[in-house]
Amino acid sequence: MRKKAVCLMSGGLDSTVTLVMALKEDYEVHGLTFDYGQRHRREVRSAKKIAEHYKIREHKIFKIDLNQIGGSALTDHRITVPKGKTFHEIKESKDIPPTYVPARNTILLSIALSYAEAIGAEAVFIGANYLDSSGYPDCRPEYIEAFQKVAKLGTRCGIRGRPVEIRTPIITFDKKTIVERGAQMGVPFELTWSCYEGGEKACGRCDSCVLRLSGFKQAGIKDPLEYGR
Amino acid sequence: MRKKAVCLMSGGLDSTVTLVMALKEDYEVHGLTFDYGQRHRREVRSAKKIAEHYKIREHKIFKIDLNQIGGSALTDHRITVPKGKTFHEIKESKDIPPTYVPARNTILLSIALSYAEAIGAEAVFIGANYLDSSGYPDCRPEYIEAFQKVAKLGTRCGIRGRPVEIRTPIITFDKKTIVERGAQMGVPFELTWSCYEGGEKACGRCDSCVLRLSGFKQAGIKDPLEYGR
Repeated sequence: MRKKAVCLMSGGLDSTVTLVMALKEDYEVHGLTFDYGQRHRREVRSAKKIAEHYKIREHKIFKIDLNQIGGSALTDHRITVPKGKTFHEIKESKDIPPTYVPARNTILLSIALSYAEAIGAEAVFIGANYLDSSGYPDCRPEYIEAFQKVAKLGTRCGIRGRPVEIRTPIITFDKKTIVERGAQMGVPFELTWSCYEGGEKACGRCDSCVLRLSGFKQAGIKDPLEYGR
Repeated sequence: MRKKAVCLMSGGLDSTVTLVMALKEDYEVHGLTFDYGQRHRREVRSAKKIAEHYKIREHKIFKIDLNQIGGSALTDHRITVPKGKTFHEIKESKDIPPTYVPARNTILLSIALSYAEAIGAEAVFIGANYLDSSGYPDCRPEYIEAFQKVAKLGTRCGIRGRPVEIRTPIITFDKKTIVERGAQMGVPFELTWSCYEGGEKACGRCDSCVLRLSGFKQAGIKDPLEYGR
């Protein structure tokens, strides 16, 4: 039987490159996308298109309304998404921006872990990435290592010696490398969506757009998305 | 300002005793109950009654449909809840029963952690208990310790030196002690619900009923719930 993996798919650049790396390892991929009450559903649509493009075995859209908790610009519409920072301002800032969703990756990984155990998957792939990022604590290697221990001790399969492995193949990459690796693997960048807003075109000014654009620029590759208002 | 805690409230015996212990420590309690697609909503109703009884500051019913994942007798109606085992059979069994929900406590704790961070709570109380239990892996002290590390490394408050503390005051208690402690504190046992089924009366034969009844019997206290069909 083919080995299975659950891949977290946000519809963005990082998770799509990660997905393709899982496919290259010949995993039977079960995609998992969260409809968590984010500002817009555009990223869910992008994830669906990517799942279709790669004809993955299954693509589950899991509904969980994090607006029930709030506490972030992504889940509470009264909080503003910051704009206009430069790549270096984002990268060097010691502040965690208001787009941080409290314990988000722990919630997403816990559901992915549950799904992986339920279907007998060996691994969960997540496109966490810390180097060129907004400094979210739950994207760091030491955090992932701690979650790996939870996966080992808190599941039936884990205590029986077959813990679900948490795979983060791009965690040490900078954005330039992510774009280059994606290009080498033929990732359809035009289907991905990184902008925190859900407009017709990507805004180009939120942290997520700035990080993405900088990665494409440094890689000398043109981002096929349209930017503007 | 009064210190805040999030208390996971399932409506059952263990979580109610835990809640009252948090109240005794003078926490401003924010109750959190999951409407997760369990076999019946009776436990959600019990949790509401307990919240009203203690007039806690806030009681959030968080909807998350774990039937989207399945894999357990509690979230997939095609899987049968086992019945008719004795206290010792349940306690000594090396098998994890089909009522195990994959990674359930990790999912519940991650949402509680997010909620705690969003409202600035110091602690999350969970009525995990391993001694007289069905042997779920995610009720053991070593699991809780691993999750504590996730709470420290994966949140903004954690990396700033104020991690949310995961409190499990009854984790080492046997059922007898839980009942005794509850009785000492005046817990309204008649409002709690432990049965995996949601009938008019508790079934008395599922693992959860058997463990509860045994605790009352060993403590020499009458369980005020009606049992039968």
